[in-house]
Amino acid sequence: MDAVNHQVRLAARPVGLPKPSDWSHTEEPVSEPGEGEVLVKILYISLDPAMRGWMNEGRSYIAPVGIGDVMRALAAGRVIASNHAGLAVGDHVTGPLGVQEYAVVNGHAVMKVDPGLAPLPVHLGTLGMPGMTAYFGLLDIGKPAEGETVVVSGAAGAVGGVVGQIAKLKGARAIGIAGGAEKCEYVVEDLGFDASIDYKTQDVAAALHEHCPKGIDVYFDNVGGEILDAALARLARHARVVICGAISQYNATGAMVGPSNYMSLLVNHASMTGFVVSDYGEKYAEGAQEMAGWLSAGKLKTREDIADGGIERFPETLLRLFEGKNTGKLVLKVAEED
Amino acid sequence: MDAVNHQVRLAARPVGLPKPSDWSHTEEPVSEPGEGEVLVKILYISLDPAMRGWMNEGRSYIAPVGIGDVMRALAAGRVIASNHAGLAVGDHVTGPLGVQEYAVVNGHAVMKVDPGLAPLPVHLGTLGMPGMTAYFGLLDIGKPAEGETVVVSGAAGAVGGVVGQIAKLKGARAIGIAGGAEKCEYVVEDLGFDASIDYKTQDVAAALHEHCPKGIDVYFDNVGGEILDAALARLARHARVVICGAISQYNATGAMVGPSNYMSLLVNHASMTGFVVSDYGEKYAEGAQEMAGWLSAGKLKTREDIADGGIERFPETLLRLFEGKNTGKLVLKVAEED
Repeated sequence: MDAVNHQVRLAARPVGLPKPSDWSHTEEPVSEPGEGEVLVKILYISLDPAMRGWMNEGRSYIAPVGIGDVMRALAAGRVIASNHAGLAVGDHVTGPLGVQEYAVVNGHAVMKVDPGLAPLPVHLGTLGMPGMTAYFGLLDIGKPAEGETVVVSGAAGAVGGVVGQIAKLKGARAIGIAGGAEKCEYVVEDLGFDASIDYKTQDVAAALHEHCPKGIDVYFDNVGGEILDAALARLARHARVVICGAISQYNATGAMVGPSNYMSLLVNHASMTGFVVSDYGEKYAEGAQEMAGWLSAGKLKTREDIADGGIERFPETLLRLFEGKNTGKLVLKVAEED
Repeated sequence: MDAVNHQVRLAARPVGLPKPSDWSHTEEPVSEPGEGEVLVKILYISLDPAMRGWMNEGRSYIAPVGIGDVMRALAAGRVIASNHAGLAVGDHVTGPLGVQEYAVVNGHAVMKVDPGLAPLPVHLGTLGMPGMTAYFGLLDIGKPAEGETVVVSGAAGAVGGVVGQIAKLKGARAIGIAGGAEKCEYVVEDLGFDASIDYKTQDVAAALHEHCPKGIDVYFDNVGGEILDAALARLARHARVVICGAISQYNATGAMVGPSNYMSLLVNHASMTGFVVSDYGEKYAEGAQEMAGWLSAGKLKTREDIADGGIERFPETLLRLFEGKNTGKLVLKVAEED
């Protein structure tokens, strides 16, 4: 095969927001798959807040991306050569394929997906890692009961939008916190949340007081910082706080800001529990099946924010996440499906 | 009855450490008990870190002490007049009797205790609120399994010392964090902890690394601040952090400091849960019985730090808690038992 594989590699560990010089753009010949491997032509790359953490040195739930390595990314693509019994040329797959145009990976590292069930970007969003993150975080940790009040930050994002919809499916009230009138309208009008709070123009504490007169039973946090503090101050007794992310802090150059209202946990006999979706590896198939069922039945709405322009646009597209510019699942289109 | 009741009342809401002018010293005639009430001569007053919170305005798990009110305090005393069927003159009781020499209270508000089982100060300590706090916080929230590592801060205090001993009774390892060589020796030599860390002279993070090679499974926090952060950074997977108090922060005049390492909860699928002992009202008797059994069997060691000098000494004695000067349960002796 004569095709060239363009790649985006991590050139330096960013301080604050990743800047152009933190990346290098390379190319190499597309390689052939070895025994048990497949060659995937990447069609869409997923952009996720967690990527910022992967770029930092130090112990975490996953090893950091090495300097000079192809940037880690979940992606969706089409198998164009296969030495793996379970996958055939033409199959669509998702997995950790990296920020590049072609990937050679072990067949066990990818998951076959059905583009008839939903378009490929949805398999990176509501049916992929963000959707499963919402599903397990809300149901296994948040455990909303009927009639309880669930508040989620980053409500117009790929995880938050699903959290609120599942809360509604379980008979709870869903309040979303998002930035800007458009996102707030999307969350209520399109996704069916009971109310939304615009953190850019509203006093979040006052709005939580208004929308949660009996307090917050489940707070699903994607952002950290002041919004986490405002939610802590409004907890109901026996509240569950789900720590899923802290996007407001990921690019901070000073010390991470901790939640100064954490003693609300004591006053309210409340808990704060963190997780990453890979903790639920064994239950993943079960969750994916229920989510696909809801999607097929029209009970879950999805929105994908698809950036064009190919692999070169990865660095600037990633910044859109941290600028709060995406609504729904942000993906970068790398190639046509043909 | 002609006796005079000396009282200590809250005169002003303290800013930072309570100062002498935050208190007023008053006296009034001892009153007679009404229907269903008892008159108690107070013998010992309990000094607890939670008192500092009760002096602040604002919503908490309990209403603040009003300006001009007798300062709220748990105390132990002897019934000297009774109009309550369940209590006779000569009975010993504990309850929220206040910082005063005599209290008239409803008989249901106090609990009869057996001075034959243990001296009265122990009924304010290991068999009282601090002991029950340790018992329910560790067993209901921390849930240490055999062989797990339990770390407790304020380990030489009334709560912390019991936490470590119960951890050992349950087959876990117990590591105590305390201030100063004397307290650290007490925790290991007298209470039987496996190791101690002197936060005044040691690097807590490095010492936790040394003593918890597989990480911390249960961290029972009484102090907050930097020590909480050091413990969070060393959590094992599925760790449970029990938020019992934050004595390092109670007299802060600036904003409360939140735990900046809270994202360790996410990385380790760990939880942080708060409580106050009154949450366990229904289970209290059951806990008290098990604790009394351990005490009688010699399985729990207690130490009481008994301040003399009567009611006048309350303000300065309270400060000893926040200066870390007490070892074991701090009580103020108000009168002789006769």
